[in-house]
Amino acid sequence: MSGERLYIYDTTLRDGQQTQGVQFSTAEKAQIAATLDALGVDYIEGGWPGANPTDSEFFEAKPQLKARFTAFGMTKRAGRSAENDDVLAAVMNAGTEAVCLVGKTHDFHVETALGISLVENTENIARSVEYLVAQGREALFDAEHFFDGYKANPGYALETVKAAYEAGARWVVLCDTNGGTLPGEIGEITRAVIAAGIPGSHLGIHTHNDTESAVAGSLAAVDAGARQIQGTLNGLGERCGNANLTTLIPTLLLKEPYASRYDTGISRDALTGLVRASRQLDDILNRVPFRQAPYVGASAFAHKAGLHASAILKDPSTYEHIDPGLVGNERIIPMSNQAGQSNLRRRLAEAGLQVDKGDPALARILETVKQREAEGYTYDSAQASFELLARSELGLSPTFFEVKRYKVTVERRKNKYDKMISLSEAVVVVKVDGEKKLSVSESLDETGSDRGPVNALAKALSKDLGRYSEQLSDMRLVDFKVRITQGGTEAVTRVIIDSEDGQGRRWSTVGVSPNIVDASFDALLDAINWKLLREGNH
Amino acid sequence: MSGERLYIYDTTLRDGQQTQGVQFSTAEKAQIAATLDALGVDYIEGGWPGANPTDSEFFEAKPQLKARFTAFGMTKRAGRSAENDDVLAAVMNAGTEAVCLVGKTHDFHVETALGISLVENTENIARSVEYLVAQGREALFDAEHFFDGYKANPGYALETVKAAYEAGARWVVLCDTNGGTLPGEIGEITRAVIAAGIPGSHLGIHTHNDTESAVAGSLAAVDAGARQIQGTLNGLGERCGNANLTTLIPTLLLKEPYASRYDTGISRDALTGLVRASRQLDDILNRVPFRQAPYVGASAFAHKAGLHASAILKDPSTYEHIDPGLVGNERIIPMSNQAGQSNLRRRLAEAGLQVDKGDPALARILETVKQREAEGYTYDSAQASFELLARSELGLSPTFFEVKRYKVTVERRKNKYDKMISLSEAVVVVKVDGEKKLSVSESLDETGSDRGPVNALAKALSKDLGRYSEQLSDMRLVDFKVRITQGGTEAVTRVIIDSEDGQGRRWSTVGVSPNIVDASFDALLDAINWKLLREGNH
Repeated sequence: MSGERLYIYDTTLRDGQQTQGVQFSTAEKAQIAATLDALGVDYIEGGWPGANPTDSEFFEAKPQLKARFTAFGMTKRAGRSAENDDVLAAVMNAGTEAVCLVGKTHDFHVETALGISLVENTENIARSVEYLVAQGREALFDAEHFFDGYKANPGYALETVKAAYEAGARWVVLCDTNGGTLPGEIGEITRAVIAAGIPGSHLGIHTHNDTESAVAGSLAAVDAGARQIQGTLNGLGERCGNANLTTLIPTLLLKEPYASRYDTGISRDALTGLVRASRQLDDILNRVPFRQAPYVGASAFAHKAGLHASAILKDPSTYEHIDPGLVGNERIIPMSNQAGQSNLRRRLAEAGLQVDKGDPALARILETVKQREAEGYTYDSAQASFELLARSELGLSPTFFEVKRYKVTVERRKNKYDKMISLSEAVVVVKVDGEKKLSVSESLDETGSDRGPVNALAKALSKDLGRYSEQLSDMRLVDFKVRITQGGTEAVTRVIIDSEDGQGRRWSTVGVSPNIVDASFDALLDAINWKLLREGNH
Repeated sequence: MSGERLYIYDTTLRDGQQTQGVQFSTAEKAQIAATLDALGVDYIEGGWPGANPTDSEFFEAKPQLKARFTAFGMTKRAGRSAENDDVLAAVMNAGTEAVCLVGKTHDFHVETALGISLVENTENIARSVEYLVAQGREALFDAEHFFDGYKANPGYALETVKAAYEAGARWVVLCDTNGGTLPGEIGEITRAVIAAGIPGSHLGIHTHNDTESAVAGSLAAVDAGARQIQGTLNGLGERCGNANLTTLIPTLLLKEPYASRYDTGISRDALTGLVRASRQLDDILNRVPFRQAPYVGASAFAHKAGLHASAILKDPSTYEHIDPGLVGNERIIPMSNQAGQSNLRRRLAEAGLQVDKGDPALARILETVKQREAEGYTYDSAQASFELLARSELGLSPTFFEVKRYKVTVERRKNKYDKMISLSEAVVVVKVDGEKKLSVSESLDETGSDRGPVNALAKALSKDLGRYSEQLSDMRLVDFKVRITQGGTEAVTRVIIDSEDGQGRRWSTVGVSPNIVDASFDALLDAINWKLLREGNH
């Protein structure tokens, strides 16, 4: 790799934590830092030491990283020296090589939010940066609200960032804090800052996605001369999120003019781990990965049947802007496509099923998938049901037990206190190892509230499956999606169940029937059978 | 509003349907078209007449719209005249004012995918557009792969679009089909097209989000001179989606330089319906709304506690780029609740309920909605349930009947022919006009297949409601969506039921419970009560 150096600064652990509903533990921060380090970013901002116990604990653990580990804080307050500011002291005590301090650059905020004079504010910035440098730290200045500040009072905004630069800041980071500045304006204002005397090699850009332009805004700043980009994995961050490094990194490495002009320090090899890094973060946050995410989403290289799919088979570049393998992603072409055999073989291999090219079972599997999809099934996400279907066609589908019949009742009535209550009860009759077993369960949870018929059925079904019951004890239903869809000529109910177990597996199964309970039961049966296969039964 | 006219072209119903897992029914297309029309877009592309039964049926219904209803198709094939191309004939037969035809502009695709000569391809474009014009239609030419084509062979790419323009196309739409072109390049190439002789007032832009730059790319084209933007609601579309109109529309209306430079034909008043339009589409697709979506996401104006939140309370502009009310969204600050009373009054008026400003019932309704939403309800699309809730707070909610109890059974077992069958049976006990009535129904349809417990309950419930039964005879359940969602601290099931009647009414109701049958029953009760209100009972 050659080209001018462009630095990647990750703030997932600090600004990313501002996402609604996100709160990392110390252990999770360590895990995410390791993922970022493997990717090869230049800076990892760990949080604000002293601001909360988690961040303090994370810095105390002094994670060993190739990246420059960075503490975040704010410039010293007015009326005291940098040495005597206790908030700044906590940041310095973290002992990191680099320290990033945020300060005000918008005159309105200085006067309204801080209530100090413009001169005092500039002084605070300069003295704080000088102090960092005197202590031998790499100093970064986060210029909060810089773009709005520049539009309101360009002279003052420039004065603040020049004060930081002249005091020795390695980087002055221009922040679009409210996320409202469009890329064109970000480019213009960045150029104005360079013209005012701060070299682009000392300028960073920090954008937010409030107009869906955080990525484009970052690129506009680079085009103008900035050489550091701040962002987060999966675009985490307050409101609509920060600039998405999961998009920016592949764009910088793979797309022109960036690919041949810059060196980000991230290798093409590390780039193939991008999808995994993105999914790991979602797993930690217990979020459903965003299918349509650029580069890393499950749908990012999914081509629906029709003109596109057949052209893709001739030459993938016809409808793909990059090779999905470069970021560790995969092409998806609907299974029900005539020439989908190679795709099918890859999908089978993922399920641990090696099937030779030309094996007649491939055509049978495709045919069955097509027929099932016409009945209302979907195998886009129900990979576990797909695997069971394929195994059945391949004669690799053991019968662990047989369901002879079931009956489930839901009742709503007044109890003896004249309060309306509901109650579900299920009876399931199965045959396991030649033995007939009757089980009954009701669906009350610990709090005495009724979880409904599917819950009662799931309990009754797994209650006594002989030698298999123990293996199912760590399995639980985590999501349940139902839709009316078209099955042949009539409307049917499609149920998708997501299950999880204690070993961190998560799998999806599908059931279809005009009767929702019946459809749920079939999805449940697939979920149990898949789990029993994974437990090594055959 | 003044300024130069900028046209918005919506392709949610055509390109948006390329999203993995998305398949609209004809009724859903009609619903979405009505939402788009209320928003005020210029063009609504309905689909490809002749390509599939749903699209054909939708065009046959000839929806009445203020927007220009547009049929999509492809340019005539080689070796036949436009008059004799049956694919084109199906498109023309839809009888729409405007027709948009896609054609190739990338030499590689012409030779590889079509296998015809470059000259033949240009001829196909010119003859097809001439034919549209001769038939009195507004002609649009979708220049597929234009940006990649221009980079590969600028001369030929320009030749194709000039052929379309000279043949009389009202719009030549430059498509970045693979989504890989970055905004800078989109701007440059658009300028080159204008320099080559096609005026910007005849140029459209169609981008995809594969580099998270579809919005910025569209704006770059407008900056360069293009005057039509194509996109989809919520950014639906193949792979990573199309340019997101839900972001572009507020940016064009509210942000400079666009706000004062252009007139999109969309009013500021219609803009306040944006959040609702976005959520309605998610409800139709049974998708969880994306919290971090720019402008319309539930987190778009959510400020975590701390420095930002306290500054926001002093002056919202400190951390917000626009006023959330402008797009119908709300500020979320922990511990601080903003009252949306004017918004509420508008919604009540839509339901025919006039409530005076300052009426204490408004605060009660807001409080109840908020509390219900915390329990897992959603009223964004379940307008009928919202109306019933409001009526109840206003003391305008008559009791037509009372449900004393119900019981429903689902059974799967072998019949006498040793075939697995399922059967659902429901018993409902109601009190109508002082009289207690027991009804029982099973759920077999005409074909003898079991429609499940909700169907059995619905039948039993409406079977004998005394004087009301007759009024319910034309009502039917047309859609049924179920999701696991968070209700307080535990997971609950949310059911949304769409109902229709013989008078063309369609309404949505919601029910929430840990028990799916219970949740369905409550949604069903709301549906029946709403219908009885509309039938003039009180």
